[in-house]
Amino acid sequence: QLKELMEPLHAADIADLLEQLNTYDRRRLVELYDREFDGEILSELDEGIREEIISVLKPHVLAEAVREMDSDDVVDLVEDLDEPQQEAILEALEDADRVAVEQALTYPEYSAGRLMQREVVTAPEHWTVGDAIDFLRNAEELPDQFYHVILVDPRMHPIGNVTLGKLMSSRRTVPLKDIVEDVFQVIPVTQYEGDVAYAFNQYHLISAPVVDEADRLVGVITIDDAMAVLDEEHEEDILRLAGVSDEASLSDTILEAAKGRALWLFVNLLTAILASLVIDIFAETINQMVALAVLMPIVASMGGNAGTQTMTVTVRALATRDLTAQNAMRVVGREVSVGALNGVLFGLIMALVAGFWFGAPMLAAVIGVAMLLTQVSAAIGGIVIPMALDRFGIDPALASGPFVTTVTDVVGFSAFLGLAASVMM
Amino acid sequence: QLKELMEPLHAADIADLLEQLNTYDRRRLVELYDREFDGEILSELDEGIREEIISVLKPHVLAEAVREMDSDDVVDLVEDLDEPQQEAILEALEDADRVAVEQALTYPEYSAGRLMQREVVTAPEHWTVGDAIDFLRNAEELPDQFYHVILVDPRMHPIGNVTLGKLMSSRRTVPLKDIVEDVFQVIPVTQYEGDVAYAFNQYHLISAPVVDEADRLVGVITIDDAMAVLDEEHEEDILRLAGVSDEASLSDTILEAAKGRALWLFVNLLTAILASLVIDIFAETINQMVALAVLMPIVASMGGNAGTQTMTVTVRALATRDLTAQNAMRVVGREVSVGALNGVLFGLIMALVAGFWFGAPMLAAVIGVAMLLTQVSAAIGGIVIPMALDRFGIDPALASGPFVTTVTDVVGFSAFLGLAASVMM
Ligand SMILES: [Mg+2]
Ligand SMILES: [Mg+2]
Ligand SMILES: [Mg+2]
Ligand SMILES: [Mg+2]
Ligand SMILES: [Mg+2]
Ligand SMILES: [Mg+2]
Ligand SMILES: [Mg+2]
Ligand SMILES: [Mg+2]
Ligand SMILES: [Mg+2]
Ligand SMILES: [Mg+2]
Ligand SMILES: [Mg+2]
Ligand SMILES: [Mg+2]
Ligand SMILES: [Mg+2]
Repeated sequence: QLKELMEPLHAADIADLLEQLNTYDRRRLVELYDREFDGEILSELDEGIREEIISVLKPHVLAEAVREMDSDDVVDLVEDLDEPQQEAILEALEDADRVAVEQALTYPEYSAGRLMQREVVTAPEHWTVGDAIDFLRNAEELPDQFYHVILVDPRMHPIGNVTLGKLMSSRRTVPLKDIVEDVFQVIPVTQYEGDVAYAFNQYHLISAPVVDEADRLVGVITIDDAMAVLDEEHEEDILRLAGVSDEASLSDTILEAAKGRALWLFVNLLTAILASLVIDIFAETINQMVALAVLMPIVASMGGNAGTQTMTVTVRALATRDLTAQNAMRVVGREVSVGALNGVLFGLIMALVAGFWFGAPMLAAVIGVAMLLTQVSAAIGGIVIPMALDRFGIDPALASGPFVTTVTDVVGFSAFLGLAASVMM
Repeated sequence: QLKELMEPLHAADIADLLEQLNTYDRRRLVELYDREFDGEILSELDEGIREEIISVLKPHVLAEAVREMDSDDVVDLVEDLDEPQQEAILEALEDADRVAVEQALTYPEYSAGRLMQREVVTAPEHWTVGDAIDFLRNAEELPDQFYHVILVDPRMHPIGNVTLGKLMSSRRTVPLKDIVEDVFQVIPVTQYEGDVAYAFNQYHLISAPVVDEADRLVGVITIDDAMAVLDEEHEEDILRLAGVSDEASLSDTILEAAKGRALWLFVNLLTAILASLVIDIFAETINQMVALAVLMPIVASMGGNAGTQTMTVTVRALATRDLTAQNAMRVVGREVSVGALNGVLFGLIMALVAGFWFGAPMLAAVIGVAMLLTQVSAAIGGIVIPMALDRFGIDPALASGPFVTTVTDVVGFSAFLGLAASVMM
C-alpha cells in the first residue's frame, strides 16, 4: 500500500518527503520500506539524513540500492560518509564499479574528477558519420546518459564533440571532423567544481570531456551535475554572506544549527564590543547631551546597510567574474560615488529630522556630516574588503561581513560622537 | 587585426569584455567592429549595455546579427528592448522567425513560453526505432539543439521522451513507446520560469516539452536555458536580501546604482528612526547611567545578526522548497530553540563582559536577559516574517529584511533599556 503511494513519485520528491519528516517517523517509514530501497533516493537526500537512513537500512537492501546507481552518483554518496559506511558500500559494488569509484575518490574533493562519469563514447578522429552510426548501433553497452560522441586522437586526447543530433542529420560520408561543435571546452580533472559549473553556464555546455595531466580523456561531465553544483555554490554564498555555516540544512538538530551560527555571532560580538569601546570614549559627551545616544544607532544602522549592499554586489560580481582586474578601479570609483551621493541625500534628510526633533542646528549639521562620512566608508569597505579577501584566496562571501560592519560601526560612532564633541562641547 | 584577436574568443567572453570597458572605449570598439557583429554576443550582454550597443550598430549589421540567432535567444533579446529598437529587430527577421518571436511575446514575461524554442522533433506514438531513425536521417532540417524525440498522440499531446542515445542503441523493431524515459515532466506554457528552473534541477531534466492550455505541444525548453534562469533567480535572491535592486548590474551608471539602493536605505532609515524613538523614551534612564548608551548597540547588533541568519536560512529553504506546510511548525520550533540556546550563551558572555567592564552586577543581569529576549525575538521574526510574506505571495527575499531588523531593534532597545529602567532606577 505504501509502495503504491510512493510509486508515482520521483526519487527526488521522495527524498524531500523523507527530509520533512521528524526522525522518528522517518525511521519508521524506512523500516516499512524494508524489502527494497531505490538507490536514487539516497543520492537525492541531504547528507545528514542520508547517513541516518544508511545506518537504518538492512545491509542487503543497501547493497542492492547502491548497485543500481550510476558510478558518479555513488562517488557523490560515498565521499561524504564515515569510514565504516563507506566500506560497506564499496563492498556491495561489483568489481568494475568499485574500481571506478575508488579511482574517482583519489581526485581531490570538489574537483571535476569527483563529478565526472567514467562512461564515455569516443570515436577516432578519422571516422565518418557512417562509421560512428554503425559503431553506436552495434555497441554492446552505451552509457545511460550521453549527448556527444567525443573525437579522440590515437593518444586519447579529445579533439572535438559531435552532437547526436548532428550525427543523425548528416550524410554517412561526412567526416566527423567536419561537424564538430564550435564550442569545445576541455576540463582538467583537478579543476574546482565551482569553476566547472561556471564554464557550463558561461559557454552553454551540455557535456564536456575531462582530461588528466597528460591531456588524456578520463571521463565526461554532464550539465545536470554541473547545474546541481551551481545551485550548491549559490547556497554556499548566500548562507556565508549571512554568517551561517554553509553545511547547514533544515534537518540539522538544534545543537548543530546553534553551533553553525554561534561562531559568526561570536565574531560579531567582538566587533560590536569594539564599537562600544568607541562609544565609551565619548561617554562624557553623551552625558552632556543624551540626544546623541538616541541618534547614534541611526548613523550606524545606515552605514551597516549601505556596506552590506556594496559588499553583496561585490561578492556576486566576483562570483560571476564581472569584476576583474581590468575594471576594478572603475567599479571602486563608482561605488564610492554612489556612497557619496546617497550620503549627501540621507545626510540632508537626517539633518532635517534631527533639527526638527531636537531643535538643535549644530546637532543637525553634525549628524548630516557623520552620515556622509559613514556612507562613503561603507562603500569603500564594502568593495575593498571582499576584493582584498578574494586576492588572498579567501572566499569573500565567508569573511567580508564582520570586517565591513566593523568599519561602518567604528566610522559611524566616531564620526558622529567625535564631531559632536569637538564642535558642540 | 582586431578580428583576429577576437576570433578565438567565445561570444560570452567577448560580451564580458565589452561589459568591462568604459562607455567610450566600448563605443569605439563596436564602431571598429562595424562590418559584422555576432548575434550571440548580443544575447550574452547585460541588458543596459545591450541597448547601448544596439543603438550604435548600423541597421544592416544589426539585421544580419539578429538573423543568425536562435528564435528563443531573439525573444530574450527583444523582450527587454524599447519599442523602436524592438521594431527594428522584428523587421530584420525573416517572416517565419518573426511570427515565432511575436507569438512567444504573447506569453507573459518570465513564463515558460518566453524560454522555449519552437523547433521540436516529434514522432507519432506508434512508431518504431527504425521509423524514427529513417525520419531523422531524411529530415530536411532539424533544430540546432535537441536531445529527445518527443512522442505525441494524434492531437499533439506529448506522451513521452526518447533520448537520442537510447534511439541509437535500440534495435529497429523496438516500439518507441518501450524506450521512453522514466522521468517525464511536461511544462505548462504559462509556468513561471523560476519554477521551470526548479523542475529541471529537481528532476535532472535535459529538455522538457512545453504545452498550451489544451495540453498540446508548443515548444521545448532545454537545460542550458533553465540553468541560466536558475542563476538569475539566485542573483535576484542574493541582491534582494541585501536590499539592492535586483536589476542592478556593474554597468549601471552612478545615478542608476544610487537609485537602486536608496529605496531600501530609506526604508531602513524609517525603521532606524522607529528604534530611536524607543531609545528616546528612556532618555532619562540613559542620562542617569551612560553605560546603557555604551552597551545598547551590542544588544541590537547581535539581534540583527541572528535575525539575518534565521531569515536567510528561511528564504533559502523556501526557495528550495525544503520548508513546507508539513514541516513548518517543527522548523519554527527548531529556530526558536536555536535562538534560545544562543541567547543563553551570548547572554552569559555579555553579562560577564559588562560585569567586569562596569563593575555593576545589576547591569550585567539586565544585559544578559535582554540578549536572551532579543535572540529569541530575532529567531521568531527571522522565520515567521518570510513565511508570512511567502504565504501572501510576496517574495520573502525582497521584503523580509526591514521587518526583521525592526523587530530585533525595537525588542533589543526596549528590553535592555526597559529592564534597566524598571530594575535599576
Ligand atoms: Mg531535494
Ligand atoms: Mg531537499
Ligand atoms: Mg545523475
Ligand atoms: Mg561532490
Ligand atoms: Mg557529495
Ligand atoms: Mg551524472
Ligand atoms: Mg563560492
Ligand atoms: Mg557574461
Ligand atoms: Mg557579465
Ligand atoms: Mg527572459
Ligand atoms: Mg531577457
Ligand atoms: Mg536555447
Ligand atoms: Mg525568487
